[in-house]
Amino acid sequence: MRMVELIEKKRDGGTLTTDEINYFIQEYTDGTIPDYQVSALLMAILLRGMDDRETGDLTLAMAYSGEVLDLKDIAPFVVDKHSTGGVGDKVSLVVIPVVAARGLPVGKMSGRGLGFSGGTLDKLESVPGFRADLSVAEFKAQLARIGIVLTGQSANLAPADGKLYALRDVTGTVPSTPLITSSVMSKKIAGGADAILLDVKVGSGAFMKTLDSARALAEGMVRIGATLGRKVTALLSDMNQPLGCAVGNSLEVREAIDVLHGHGPQDFDEHCLIVAAEMLYLGGKADTLEAARTQVTETIASGQAWEKFRQLIIAQGGDVRYVDEPERFPQAPLIETVTASQDGYLAEVRADEIGMVALGLGGGREKKGDIIDHRVGIVMHCKVGDQIEANAPLFTIHATDAARRDEAVRRTLRALTFASDPVEPLPLFYARIT
Amino acid sequence: MRMVELIEKKRDGGTLTTDEINYFIQEYTDGTIPDYQVSALLMAILLRGMDDRETGDLTLAMAYSGEVLDLKDIAPFVVDKHSTGGVGDKVSLVVIPVVAARGLPVGKMSGRGLGFSGGTLDKLESVPGFRADLSVAEFKAQLARIGIVLTGQSANLAPADGKLYALRDVTGTVPSTPLITSSVMSKKIAGGADAILLDVKVGSGAFMKTLDSARALAEGMVRIGATLGRKVTALLSDMNQPLGCAVGNSLEVREAIDVLHGHGPQDFDEHCLIVAAEMLYLGGKADTLEAARTQVTETIASGQAWEKFRQLIIAQGGDVRYVDEPERFPQAPLIETVTASQDGYLAEVRADEIGMVALGLGGGREKKGDIIDHRVGIVMHCKVGDQIEANAPLFTIHATDAARRDEAVRRTLRALTFASDPVEPLPLFYARIT
Repeated sequence: MRMVELIEKKRDGGTLTTDEINYFIQEYTDGTIPDYQVSALLMAILLRGMDDRETGDLTLAMAYSGEVLDLKDIAPFVVDKHSTGGVGDKVSLVVIPVVAARGLPVGKMSGRGLGFSGGTLDKLESVPGFRADLSVAEFKAQLARIGIVLTGQSANLAPADGKLYALRDVTGTVPSTPLITSSVMSKKIAGGADAILLDVKVGSGAFMKTLDSARALAEGMVRIGATLGRKVTALLSDMNQPLGCAVGNSLEVREAIDVLHGHGPQDFDEHCLIVAAEMLYLGGKADTLEAARTQVTETIASGQAWEKFRQLIIAQGGDVRYVDEPERFPQAPLIETVTASQDGYLAEVRADEIGMVALGLGGGREKKGDIIDHRVGIVMHCKVGDQIEANAPLFTIHATDAARRDEAVRRTLRALTFASDPVEPLPLFYARIT
Repeated sequence: MRMVELIEKKRDGGTLTTDEINYFIQEYTDGTIPDYQVSALLMAILLRGMDDRETGDLTLAMAYSGEVLDLKDIAPFVVDKHSTGGVGDKVSLVVIPVVAARGLPVGKMSGRGLGFSGGTLDKLESVPGFRADLSVAEFKAQLARIGIVLTGQSANLAPADGKLYALRDVTGTVPSTPLITSSVMSKKIAGGADAILLDVKVGSGAFMKTLDSARALAEGMVRIGATLGRKVTALLSDMNQPLGCAVGNSLEVREAIDVLHGHGPQDFDEHCLIVAAEMLYLGGKADTLEAARTQVTETIASGQAWEKFRQLIIAQGGDVRYVDEPERFPQAPLIETVTASQDGYLAEVRADEIGMVALGLGGGREKKGDIIDHRVGIVMHCKVGDQIEANAPLFTIHATDAARRDEAVRRTLRALTFASDPVEPLPLFYARIT
């Protein structure tokens, strides 16, 4: 088999066989096939597509390019969660403790932020001492002991995905449905997942900008899951404005803590309720979604979810005093709240721009390896549809210096659109696909 | 400027600016942009296309990625020739001496063979001692002295093309009209050409399999030439059977010598006449194509073209006794002529298969760096449309061993189709585009 023939076949709109896909993934993982051939194939896949059989084969080939976790003696049925990434998305920080507190063990391997999209690990590392680099042995031991883990992707799991993702990032081949699907699903399968809750974001602050493209991705992932014997539920959720109020690492951790204490922002709180209920339902902890939702509410109200979050922080070396007393988190030296100049309604928030503001303040990475300032970010005080009075607070910038603060203020104001007539609020979810 | 943004723009069907194209070629030539980003861009260009402005910019950027020859003090007007490559195409060996003998200096940089397609340099190296690696200084000195050079591409000329071509070859990105156009034209411009005669092959033994694709390529090259101030004439010529009779290095040189002596195969002889006449006409040596054709005939009949060919061989170190007495060329140890088993008409010759037979005999390269046996090859004794009687010779195989000979016989027979009813001969040319 010759790699150039695979490239030519896909270039001309052909369908790759299972053997061809296995060959390409195995040889690329082994370093036999060079990056420059793979990037040409990735571009051909992006522009020519892949059918479900190819995407399923690619997913399995990537999953089995390294170690595949067997968690059967720790957790009889493993439910995982994946978000396609957005602005202010700190949902995992809430739902993982909730689900684990209900006795459904969750060992989640998460990613880091890049560009306008934040990463759960970066947020957790706001807590001094928190380790996100557990070995597979540590992962399994902690999951068996306390039923919750939130760590980085192990290099042993789906190594093909690690190599492919790094290459896609620099070759313009990220936004391809079969490539996104296989990347997400291969990691989940290698991580031992039996069922997966997908939170597919759609809107200005998401990779998928339109409902159609998000639905196509979600439906594809649900189909591939079925092909591979995994239960998959996908939610299409709104990302036309940041989720919750806070965007920025420690600011988001504090907002997640608020939700776990039962007093978070309404939209973020409701989003977490629904995602956690779906996971409990997928994991067989409730017979109906309504029953699952009741369980979630009770678990938060009783403090069990909060206790599970504390266990997670402690188990992974984090200083629990910070989450117990969030005012301990270091604050950015400059904090400025911007108010409305006149009455009106908030009509639009360009969520990607808000993500870029946080990035510009030093809260994200422009390229891999950039150092993150956990203190900085932005807190929104209004949502699309809100009626706003003159002089009411719009947003607060947390910055390290005046130049960046002023740039963030300017850029955030440009990202907001106001109307004089009432505006409909945005929905939280658009669809549920099973 | 970021390379990934250029890739994304072309991926999404956008048009690259002149600055973007210059940036990409300059940085790739300098080694700043890695192969894996370039191959993704090449695949996007192949699948999305480029308009004439982009193709012209790409051509100039590649031409000016290295040294651009100024031959004004040697030759006031330089006419070059390029063939897109075919089977049995030894046209340059004849037309370059003819044109040079008419006082139009021709310094041609040529390529080596790969796959089923032969290379002029490999053919000339059948002559012991012939050097195809002249420096630019040697090139200029020889062109000034005898008005004829036939050598390899200098690494100093259009280095971006050298890098891009090697990458395209292994990433399935060869058959792209803008990439082929810019590759051909950039080398010609860097080589100092004022006018270019393009011999665009079409058919089973050519890269362009259909008349439509060949016409699109030819028209594109003529348009780009006009944009860049170069006179370009393109001929669409048939490659549905080998050109002339001989396929194989020294066999082809001997056939070219026959034409220069006025007794070559009719089709090859006529092809050379037309190409040489077009070049003289492009170079202003004749007012009409008819007058140019008369000049070509006279130049061959008078022996001047032959004398110019001898000068070329001698100037570049070749042992002129071989071309003076072609029976000196070493012969392959096994020579077998296959005859027709019954009466009929030759209906089809799969030219690419004939090229592969020569390759299989050791006369070509499967990959770069393979050693060539100059003795081996195949000589066809009939053309499509010929009436053939039982026991008449069909073809002769020149082989090094019995196994390869027998395989060549089998494969050549499979490449021929016979009919019981008369068959129209193939045309030599399909179109002339200016």
